[in-house]
Amino acid sequence: MKLATIKTDKRDGKLVVVSKDLSRAAAVPHIAQTMQQALDDWEKTAPLLRKAAAALEAGDIEGVFTFDSEAAAAPLPRAYQWCDGSAYLSHAELVRKARNAEMPPELYENPLMYQGGSDKMLGPRDPIVLADESWGIDLEAEIAVIVTDTPMGVRKSAAPGHIALVTIVNDVSLRGLIPGELAKGFGFFQSKPSTAFAAVAVTPDELDDAWDGAKLSLPLQSWVNGERLGLPNAGEDLNFDFAALIEHAAKTRELGAGTIIGSGTVSNRERAVGSSCLAERRMIETIDEGAPKTPFLRFGDLVKIDMLDNAGRSIFGAIEQRVEQYSPV
Amino acid sequence: MKLATIKTDKRDGKLVVVSKDLSRAAAVPHIAQTMQQALDDWEKTAPLLRKAAAALEAGDIEGVFTFDSEAAAAPLPRAYQWCDGSAYLSHAELVRKARNAEMPPELYENPLMYQGGSDKMLGPRDPIVLADESWGIDLEAEIAVIVTDTPMGVRKSAAPGHIALVTIVNDVSLRGLIPGELAKGFGFFQSKPSTAFAAVAVTPDELDDAWDGAKLSLPLQSWVNGERLGLPNAGEDLNFDFAALIEHAAKTRELGAGTIIGSGTVSNRERAVGSSCLAERRMIETIDEGAPKTPFLRFGDLVKIDMLDNAGRSIFGAIEQRVEQYSPV
Repeated sequence: MKLATIKTDKRDGKLVVVSKDLSRAAAVPHIAQTMQQALDDWEKTAPLLRKAAAALEAGDIEGVFTFDSEAAAAPLPRAYQWCDGSAYLSHAELVRKARNAEMPPELYENPLMYQGGSDKMLGPRDPIVLADESWGIDLEAEIAVIVTDTPMGVRKSAAPGHIALVTIVNDVSLRGLIPGELAKGFGFFQSKPSTAFAAVAVTPDELDDAWDGAKLSLPLQSWVNGERLGLPNAGEDLNFDFAALIEHAAKTRELGAGTIIGSGTVSNRERAVGSSCLAERRMIETIDEGAPKTPFLRFGDLVKIDMLDNAGRSIFGAIEQRVEQYSPV
Repeated sequence: MKLATIKTDKRDGKLVVVSKDLSRAAAVPHIAQTMQQALDDWEKTAPLLRKAAAALEAGDIEGVFTFDSEAAAAPLPRAYQWCDGSAYLSHAELVRKARNAEMPPELYENPLMYQGGSDKMLGPRDPIVLADESWGIDLEAEIAVIVTDTPMGVRKSAAPGHIALVTIVNDVSLRGLIPGELAKGFGFFQSKPSTAFAAVAVTPDELDDAWDGAKLSLPLQSWVNGERLGLPNAGEDLNFDFAALIEHAAKTRELGAGTIIGSGTVSNRERAVGSSCLAERRMIETIDEGAPKTPFLRFGDLVKIDMLDNAGRSIFGAIEQRVEQYSPV
């Protein structure tokens, strides 16, 4: 089934089931008012939501309306936890190569993961509002999963059973602020402003053969101002799948229902497929031509991220965000 | 006024007003069911909660019961954001001195802050449950504030107006996991398991002259197995007050209602007042005696953190947690 959150005057919006072709939706307040409520009681709500989704496909449900990503919030407009990995090491290898450094071998064994801010998640059409272009505004196209309650110490083998939903993400990053923050040693903070999500999150069965239980093998497409940035396959060159990322996240703590786990920027070693962030394209330019030439995002730029199924239909709805200058109120 | 969350069969518990002497409480479901609900609509709920708190003091409210920290969850049993600073640089100076390193001068101008996990906050009597003593289990006694909606780019001068509540925290840390995580560059993750909170969060006016709008000038007391660890004054040797920490946190994003901002381990340069974490005591032992002698926490150990007002009464209720070994279910 496919689920989304429609914006309302409430902070957490309104949970809806969405048709497979993303054309129609219906609210399900008798099952759960919000996505978080559904996830808090997933064993009970998931079967009921599946029935509602089937009824929507069959045209046998009340209150159907035309679905539009424009009206959608992030699936979780605010979440209790956002853990973002860096699972495609070809990305990290390029970072190192661009500065002539060695890859620390332990990165191949132990996932990189940072704790992200989750009090405000952007919807698929929400602008990226920031005060300063010189911060080096970048997109990062990623895959994310949303988990149910997951016990501390969960093993890789048991982790896939906790994956409730899958979606795609734009992990907005401020490249100019990252070196200073990482040098201080406490990780990302100001360099990771609000993250954006596609409108729709889907149960793994919606992904058919493209989902193997812990990774999603389809191209993740991204564009800047209509020009293709990349379409790397999210199932290739992945050093850590979601089972490994969940095991890592849960080593010293349980993960509460609704925890979102991100893959990090999707990146393939095959250069012909392009990149999922401008920083990576700039590193390749540095390696090949001695200096970066693609600029970071500027006010007015339009970012688009989408994933199509094998029949060419958008699975989650596209993320389409314009970069805007912040004016303090 | 003083507020707390009582554990129920619901994840977010039940909001209560608590008497100034922490002896009695009453639920206020007609105002807000949960702490987060109250914070989401603070302008409207705060005056009503103040009336309820006044009625509780006057003995003029229904459903009064005996208040007990044992029955309390964290004020926010799960929160949308937890940003923890490191505002007492005497702590960082000791870290550097113990390894004969220089303090980077920018640390005096730009606060250290990490994004913490907030999907599960521990109540004041919840055990610290971890799988492995060799991870170097430590307490960190801190002050924290809970803010209302705070705009991006808020200035230090406007930040205190967004502080709704103040409380105390045990930011449990795994010292053995920190060096490896920080070396990877993405900050703390596994080394910061669930954080614990005192039962009661109070509005700043409850702190009288000890609160200057952005810092709390009272000793924060901590003990391990009944032996005093320290009682540094949280208003002294503070390089960044909560106004500065909020300004830092909000530089590139708004802060959602219920965001918790921590001070970092309270630490004074005056050694006679002791420390707020074992790591600091061990650093002092290393500087003075060449090697640490105080061990980190072991299974069965009891941690206590409390703050008393000038009349010797506990303001927030004590945090009292036993360290327990995790047994996977």
